[in-house]
Amino acid sequence: MAVRVYRGLSPVPAVDAGDRGLAYGDGLFETMRVARGRLPWWPAHHARLARGAAALGLVAPPRDWLEAGLAALLAGAPSDAVLKLVLTRGAGGRGYAPQGAGEPTLVLSLHPLPAAIAAPLVLRWCTLRLALQPALAGHKHLNRLEQVLARAEWDDPDVHEGLLLDARGRVACATAANVFARIDGRWLTPRVDECGVAGVARAWLLDRVPDAAEAALSPADVESAEALFLCNAVRGILPVGRLGERRWPPHEGLRALAAAMGRELAAG
Amino acid sequence: MAVRVYRGLSPVPAVDAGDRGLAYGDGLFETMRVARGRLPWWPAHHARLARGAAALGLVAPPRDWLEAGLAALLAGAPSDAVLKLVLTRGAGGRGYAPQGAGEPTLVLSLHPLPAAIAAPLVLRWCTLRLALQPALAGHKHLNRLEQVLARAEWDDPDVHEGLLLDARGRVACATAANVFARIDGRWLTPRVDECGVAGVARAWLLDRVPDAAEAALSPADVESAEALFLCNAVRGILPVGRLGERRWPPHEGLRALAAAMGRELAAG
Repeated sequence: MAVRVYRGLSPVPAVDAGDRGLAYGDGLFETMRVARGRLPWWPAHHARLARGAAALGLVAPPRDWLEAGLAALLAGAPSDAVLKLVLTRGAGGRGYAPQGAGEPTLVLSLHPLPAAIAAPLVLRWCTLRLALQPALAGHKHLNRLEQVLARAEWDDPDVHEGLLLDARGRVACATAANVFARIDGRWLTPRVDECGVAGVARAWLLDRVPDAAEAALSPADVESAEALFLCNAVRGILPVGRLGERRWPPHEGLRALAAAMGRELAAG
Repeated sequence: MAVRVYRGLSPVPAVDAGDRGLAYGDGLFETMRVARGRLPWWPAHHARLARGAAALGLVAPPRDWLEAGLAALLAGAPSDAVLKLVLTRGAGGRGYAPQGAGEPTLVLSLHPLPAAIAAPLVLRWCTLRLALQPALAGHKHLNRLEQVLARAEWDDPDVHEGLLLDARGRVACATAANVFARIDGRWLTPRVDECGVAGVARAWLLDRVPDAAEAALSPADVESAEALFLCNAVRGILPVGRLGERRWPPHEGLRALAAAMGRELAAG
């Protein structure tokens, strides 16, 4: 795994042990698909990073400089891979106060593409419910203990993902993916204004698919849906075949949608 | 600042850039007062660390080994200081899944004692409300973006701390301290079963002071209290003199309580 660490715009050998990313999760990340040595969805990832940085009051590095660093790392990368970016507020500051923190820390790392999942997916419901925090919702920040605890609820390799409810009992997302349900001729996905992450694949679908929309979804809505899928920026669309006892046959429209996103993701 | 980093029981030069503490805030911390070269409240800090580790399913290092490491660091420490301990799940694992993570990471670091605050404190109300998450409440975990955002709400050096409400509008805590209010002859402090941290100084008070108790507190309860104080394990008891427009004169019983805790904290 190739890793590069920067303090401000300068390469450094390692992350400082006093980094606020480690101390408080005071930062953001992006997990990006590398295809044909490029980042097909970079503009969307960068836009989300910029929105998160504005929300946290964190200074993101200049885009040109960032793109040069990504290009240098990608030059030695396999054609298909995953590139992870972590941006933190750097070291220091007075306790929680961000005033006085040093220059931001940037970590870029290359990882092998995860093994393909033999779709359709098998899901379970998680017990943990996501807390409602409008100040952080939607952003891909580094406070991910809820996802870690939810993912720790099962260790059965035949279960691929877990669906999470929010504190009010509405469907929110999977531990590492957004969810869409086919209901009354539309692809519906939960809002991300109180919890959850505004996924890049989710945004692509809401933007490109005329019958995709945001909606509040109950567990019963999801279980009675005509079809169900998860999506994220690394794996694209993943049709769901089973959720607990509920099973779905392959869905014709979903197959076409998954193929369309797959072509875009693999195009580089 | 002296820093020691361990992977499992082995010293390592730095924190791995892929550490789950940085990636997800997947870990715990303790901030401890050093007095006369010792840690007066170590047993309480260790007990909280062990409770947090059990809640996160994280393996804490053996207590004997940990105490030997602390003693080695304290041997070179100034008589009065702050010792911070960070314990993470280590590097790796499959995404959020903790299964497959490496050995835990431990970071021990010494810091100067913060400058004394000229009590009584000046407080403000924070706008950000703490989300309710029973699965994490009480534990001193590394997901602290709420505290960072709340502390970023002001930069006036004459305001020492901010009080936070929870999502239901009840008083929760300050950004880096617990709060007690004198009401009807008792010292009342919010419960920490839905948000907040089970502070070591807070536990000392609930255990030792006969008229200290947990209770739900509204902002009006706090503003109409006979006296108010904050507490944490580094600074002990800090009487509050002002909260917004509300002012409190010195309180005789509080002075005695603060002195009692101060003696214990400084005893080493």
